[in-house]
Amino acid sequence: MAEGPRPKRKHDEEEAEAAPHDGAAAVAPFPLAELRLQRVLRESARDKAVFLHGQVTSPSGEGTDAVVILEKTPFQEEKVLDLLKKHTKLELQMHNDIYSTYHLYPPPELSEIKTTVVYPATEKHLQKYLRQEVHLIRETWEDYKNITLPFIQSQSFSIQWVYNILEKKAEADRIIHENPDPCDGFVLVPDFKWNQNQLDDLYLIALVHRREVKSLRDLTAEHLPLLRNILQEGKEAVAKRFGVPGSQLRIYLHYQPSYYHLHVHFTALGYDAPGSSVERAHLLADVVDNLAMDSTYYQKRALTFALRADELLLKKFQEAGRV
Amino acid sequence: MAEGPRPKRKHDEEEAEAAPHDGAAAVAPFPLAELRLQRVLRESARDKAVFLHGQVTSPSGEGTDAVVILEKTPFQEEKVLDLLKKHTKLELQMHNDIYSTYHLYPPPELSEIKTTVVYPATEKHLQKYLRQEVHLIRETWEDYKNITLPFIQSQSFSIQWVYNILEKKAEADRIIHENPDPCDGFVLVPDFKWNQNQLDDLYLIALVHRREVKSLRDLTAEHLPLLRNILQEGKEAVAKRFGVPGSQLRIYLHYQPSYYHLHVHFTALGYDAPGSSVERAHLLADVVDNLAMDSTYYQKRALTFALRADELLLKKFQEAGRV
Repeated sequence: MAEGPRPKRKHDEEEAEAAPHDGAAAVAPFPLAELRLQRVLRESARDKAVFLHGQVTSPSGEGTDAVVILEKTPFQEEKVLDLLKKHTKLELQMHNDIYSTYHLYPPPELSEIKTTVVYPATEKHLQKYLRQEVHLIRETWEDYKNITLPFIQSQSFSIQWVYNILEKKAEADRIIHENPDPCDGFVLVPDFKWNQNQLDDLYLIALVHRREVKSLRDLTAEHLPLLRNILQEGKEAVAKRFGVPGSQLRIYLHYQPSYYHLHVHFTALGYDAPGSSVERAHLLADVVDNLAMDSTYYQKRALTFALRADELLLKKFQEAGRV
Repeated sequence: MAEGPRPKRKHDEEEAEAAPHDGAAAVAPFPLAELRLQRVLRESARDKAVFLHGQVTSPSGEGTDAVVILEKTPFQEEKVLDLLKKHTKLELQMHNDIYSTYHLYPPPELSEIKTTVVYPATEKHLQKYLRQEVHLIRETWEDYKNITLPFIQSQSFSIQWVYNILEKKAEADRIIHENPDPCDGFVLVPDFKWNQNQLDDLYLIALVHRREVKSLRDLTAEHLPLLRNILQEGKEAVAKRFGVPGSQLRIYLHYQPSYYHLHVHFTALGYDAPGSSVERAHLLADVVDNLAMDSTYYQKRALTFALRADELLLKKFQEAGRV
């Protein structure tokens, strides 16, 4: 994380020093200016984000696919005054009574755009970001065994990046907290989606060390110590590092998750985080209580989730006549 | 207005053309650079917006309040390529496997910020935009009996408007579907928040005929016929009237609800409806399964919900030492 994000608060200095400036510097930056735009996969006017499918010419000479995600960044409280004073241009758009609107054009240093590149990108990546109609699935345990599990096993979506983090081969300097226990331990890191410039959209991920737990469906009372560690130590680590108390954190799992290595999401309660809606998120506190009440709760209960029209898993449910 | 749905680009153009340029020209632009920042009223990391309370010195010499709303603008498809090619600076933030993130700093002309000024602003305006801190509560059944229930009973929220609908004294013409059974029946009406102009933000409410059920906490297996009627008939009615299939509906209860007469929310799955996040929404299908599994599930289980700092119920939990 050379040129690492600058978290606000007192940790700035330590953080800056902690960041290894050679690790990332070794990597050639993606040739963004040479990107040939193929299509806009998705736009979100609300999130001020756009998902692009582009191509760049690889060393071997042929076009290689890339996904480029551009997202405008939240305002930083400490830079708002600069914005008002240093703006290069202010255009009056309209004025009515006590209300007026302007176009403000700030200097580059105050206009950061968070850019995420997936390169080389597979067809799966392109599909993942393509806007699609969604359908709600009510998955029984039988559906899971007969449709979802075989599907997961047939897929080979690489989670090497998860192992890189767990093995400290990547993002080691980004680790916020670790419990090294191979069975009940985990690593807490900032999510890619969070640039750490402000706490409003705080987003961290706890990745468990044990590798055989795919999702909520695999959890039993055996995993309670692990889950309680994540809940307890995760809250403490976020409070210590970022000053955000546990009562202002939304701590949850996704079902379906986007990758099948058990992980837990920590987001700021005030942040309307994508994926925090009821049809996908399961509060860790509820999961713990459900397992404490019935060790096989998640091997019995139907679970609801949404699938996009293009997702192969939806086709499997359709073929099975379950949609 | 900054948080409202963005008008489509077409409207933006009309809006721009509609803006009275001469009238506007007559008005001296707001002295944004002279604004003395008093406080940040609210930030929205998701919407990339910030609401500021500032002061400027009025002609008469004393400080006058203003609300300044800054909101980053959505990407315009036709300008995305410029953004990639003309960016002034690209900084590698982190790199892991096929994923990398960058900070991109575009030129001013590609970094418009929508700026809205309310000037002079009254205390009402300041309050309107002020963000309240939220706290997560984990309410046990004992908390419910000792804190929440007495609080609800001490309040006299009028729900006459609900009775007016149930008795056809109001909105009779808006009823989408009714099951008249006094015990297991309900009325389905469009929610006030939905203008019915488009299906994207479809929002309906099912109000039960029986009046003694306050919330999720009162539900037992006795209510399964009622809940199953709402789930089944509600889906059918929405499909019949609006052509939206049940697989594209999010059907849920709120806890805490905003009024204590049992009601169920129906929203378009594609619509990121306020109140559909995991800390407030409970899928009706899950509620039915939980009650079928254990009639007293909701008299046993802890339930999580968020309260704003100014809510009286939060004070009650604080007084009881539960926050």
